[in-house]
Amino acid sequence: MSNWSVKFFVFFELLIFSSFAKCGILDNSIEQFSYKLPSGESICSVPDNLVKEIAGYQDIVNKIIDEITNGKFKGQTWDSLAELTDLFGPRMACSESLEKAIDYAVENMKEVGLENVHTENVSAPFWIRGYESAQLTRPWKKNLRLLGLGSTIGTPRGGIIADVIAVESFGEFEKIPAEQVKGKIVVFVPKWKGYGETVVYRSAAASTAAKKGAVAALVRSITPFSIGSPHTGHQNYEDDVKKIPVAAITVEDAEMILRMYRRGQDVTINLEMTDFNKPNCITRNTIGELQGTVHKNESVVVISGHFDSWDVGVGAMDDGGGAMISWKAVQFLKALNVRPKRTLRVILWTSEEQGMVGAHQYMEDHKSQEDKEFNFFLESDIGTFDPKGLDFSGNSDASCILKEILKLMKPLNATEYKEPTDGGPDIEWWSKRGFPAASLLNKNEHYFWFHHSDGDSMNVWDSKDTLDKCTALWAAISYVIADLSINIPRTLVSNN
Amino acid sequence: MSNWSVKFFVFFELLIFSSFAKCGILDNSIEQFSYKLPSGESICSVPDNLVKEIAGYQDIVNKIIDEITNGKFKGQTWDSLAELTDLFGPRMACSESLEKAIDYAVENMKEVGLENVHTENVSAPFWIRGYESAQLTRPWKKNLRLLGLGSTIGTPRGGIIADVIAVESFGEFEKIPAEQVKGKIVVFVPKWKGYGETVVYRSAAASTAAKKGAVAALVRSITPFSIGSPHTGHQNYEDDVKKIPVAAITVEDAEMILRMYRRGQDVTINLEMTDFNKPNCITRNTIGELQGTVHKNESVVVISGHFDSWDVGVGAMDDGGGAMISWKAVQFLKALNVRPKRTLRVILWTSEEQGMVGAHQYMEDHKSQEDKEFNFFLESDIGTFDPKGLDFSGNSDASCILKEILKLMKPLNATEYKEPTDGGPDIEWWSKRGFPAASLLNKNEHYFWFHHSDGDSMNVWDSKDTLDKCTALWAAISYVIADLSINIPRTLVSNN
Repeated sequence: MSNWSVKFFVFFELLIFSSFAKCGILDNSIEQFSYKLPSGESICSVPDNLVKEIAGYQDIVNKIIDEITNGKFKGQTWDSLAELTDLFGPRMACSESLEKAIDYAVENMKEVGLENVHTENVSAPFWIRGYESAQLTRPWKKNLRLLGLGSTIGTPRGGIIADVIAVESFGEFEKIPAEQVKGKIVVFVPKWKGYGETVVYRSAAASTAAKKGAVAALVRSITPFSIGSPHTGHQNYEDDVKKIPVAAITVEDAEMILRMYRRGQDVTINLEMTDFNKPNCITRNTIGELQGTVHKNESVVVISGHFDSWDVGVGAMDDGGGAMISWKAVQFLKALNVRPKRTLRVILWTSEEQGMVGAHQYMEDHKSQEDKEFNFFLESDIGTFDPKGLDFSGNSDASCILKEILKLMKPLNATEYKEPTDGGPDIEWWSKRGFPAASLLNKNEHYFWFHHSDGDSMNVWDSKDTLDKCTALWAAISYVIADLSINIPRTLVSNN
Repeated sequence: MSNWSVKFFVFFELLIFSSFAKCGILDNSIEQFSYKLPSGESICSVPDNLVKEIAGYQDIVNKIIDEITNGKFKGQTWDSLAELTDLFGPRMACSESLEKAIDYAVENMKEVGLENVHTENVSAPFWIRGYESAQLTRPWKKNLRLLGLGSTIGTPRGGIIADVIAVESFGEFEKIPAEQVKGKIVVFVPKWKGYGETVVYRSAAASTAAKKGAVAALVRSITPFSIGSPHTGHQNYEDDVKKIPVAAITVEDAEMILRMYRRGQDVTINLEMTDFNKPNCITRNTIGELQGTVHKNESVVVISGHFDSWDVGVGAMDDGGGAMISWKAVQFLKALNVRPKRTLRVILWTSEEQGMVGAHQYMEDHKSQEDKEFNFFLESDIGTFDPKGLDFSGNSDASCILKEILKLMKPLNATEYKEPTDGGPDIEWWSKRGFPAASLLNKNEHYFWFHHSDGDSMNVWDSKDTLDKCTALWAAISYVIADLSINIPRTLVSNN
């Protein structure tokens, strides 16, 4: 199809849509805001009156942004996050500090006048880091910094002393006969190829090594850059495979050990870990609302981040930042007396780091009424550095509306649209069910430098302004979505 | 003075100088290569024949650079440094690993045919890091990563538990009455303002705190950027002030403690350190030569880096890189059969980290014959990242010749000239005595990210090419200086 015929076609469709468009809640099964060309490409065709309606939010969006980045809320997001992390430290699922922080959040949300503030219980895996020590004993003595991976077991009492096999990839490991692996500690030293591709070494190291009789596995930390810090994270034991201890070591040590091994130096490690798993604990998702002027308990817009963190650093970045901008966005809208038609619901998920446990529980608990209850899901869990726009997951009609809304974010220089989102682990349960969902797109190039390490602190931000900008974008976007005359279109998925 | 009169003046002076110039060793007290204007500004006036002579080295410089960066030596500097650090680990002064590494260097230099390979003894301070542990016990429990500072004493057996006073500056500390400081642990949290300005907090924290009765001092690591790693370094106890334990903690923890303290949170730390000082040990400067075709034991060009390191990381950057490019530059010139008129002497200094101890001993041992023995000193100790040119310290005549030589480094894009050098701690003894001295100018913006931390590893370089380029510059520059028809001019300083 030529360019001209596309243009004509779109023009024609727009005429038809314009005549259908009306103000008020639309029936999404009739209305549509995009058109799929025979080539498969989607063309946006948002009706004029909806385009105008969205553009009409520019003044209120400007006011929200200005108050948060330059007005009375300037600096407050960073200060609140510093207070949270300084008061409670890291917020590991099932820890006392997380539960104290949840109590503090509940109290604080009530104080600032959020509505329907409550928690919802979640049963979560309970893993405790114990004493962890690793020492290179050959070719020379060196304490290796390590962090046991979430769910790892400990070593036998007194630790393990074993020779090392070091490999760069699972492929390389496959070629080594089991009799050579038996009784050894296997060190996996994958090259960084982005998080998604590399993290499989963290998830699968223990069981992969155990299948050939290894006594423990160590993994190069999953990060592109290091200054001598290990990075923890979750790992999974395969069913019916012997559980062996597994930990992350630093990039520097892992690559050195790989060089030593390839050079033919004898490498021996003394590993001692007392990590262990306990029966599930009860933890809580934390919820507060700015209830809608028209709809209170239906077509809710969820704005969220996870409140739990790993037990290293203080979880300021992952995901204190995402949780705090969600909480503050709604708090500031309330303080500005800017209340949308639909309810804005802050959810601070619990036990994300153990496998999106809190979010999954929430989905199970709310699934039966989902058609009525929810409209849109926002999540920030891939950094709160300078905002660029939104990562979106949803159908092409919803996408076209989101693109219109993003035009309002010019004062923040954050109008970028990307899809599909890769930053919404907790809301993925809902996007898989066809709900429109968006994640904060931000300049997070260095996110994995700090991720799951002692570097996850208030120092990841160069300036308080950065968090102000994220909160401003978050508040403005969520307000417009929640106040719009129509629900953002959803794709219906069978409810199983 | 107008621009025109300056130009006329310089032209006239050049005519006079040209008539004086000759090939061969010049008497520096008569000849000069720069002219000082009445304004104090120096203008270069290198005679035409010397300019031509220097330009004549372009072919050999190109060959040296090409062989090291693209030819048979490509990648060898990085590989040799990886081998050194993988075989011996960090090379702390007075440690067995440093002495083993020195033996290895001597053996290796002999094998590749360097001449007059030997070591010269040095008596050096002997400090040993012991068990070190710090735990925040209030407001919540957190293990604080720490590194005792070189020469620190330990705590009493069983450690210290004390309340904390946290300050940002010595000025702020001065205002706190001694009775409030007594019995406390003082945490100094200076903002990073460049190394020179900030490192005074590391050097002076213990004695400053002790004067007011503190029981220990902790210092924010001296770095502009952190991922949860502490940075060690030397510190000095003042005479007649009680010695108290002192350690560096991470930027993240230090800044958190300062916020807690200022917020009014009660902060308590449990500190235990078993560090201790022993009687001096004997260590060694390591020396090898490519002896000159004309002058063997006079007008020597020294090319150097320090071989010792701190006991954290592996000392690949500080100063394994500087030591290795010096060693390899001379080794590769020998292998290329490119032998200059004067002797090139590699010196791998020992015990730099304890206060340039090896370099000072060398100066004392060689001072009496210095006029005859030395011509020029090169040192690399501020990073071996992509080379930019040279940092120079010396008189204006020498400076003018150096600038001419640097023009030859265009193939490396490393023709930058800067003065005075701030990267030559070990050769400073000689530059203070009037000798011309240069340090490797390089793209070391991230040097202090890794400095004296576990991050000081082979991973600081993105590519092996970087070290090749440094070695190439080092070899080419030192060759030209050592082969030139004249000595680089020196300023005479009284021999006391």
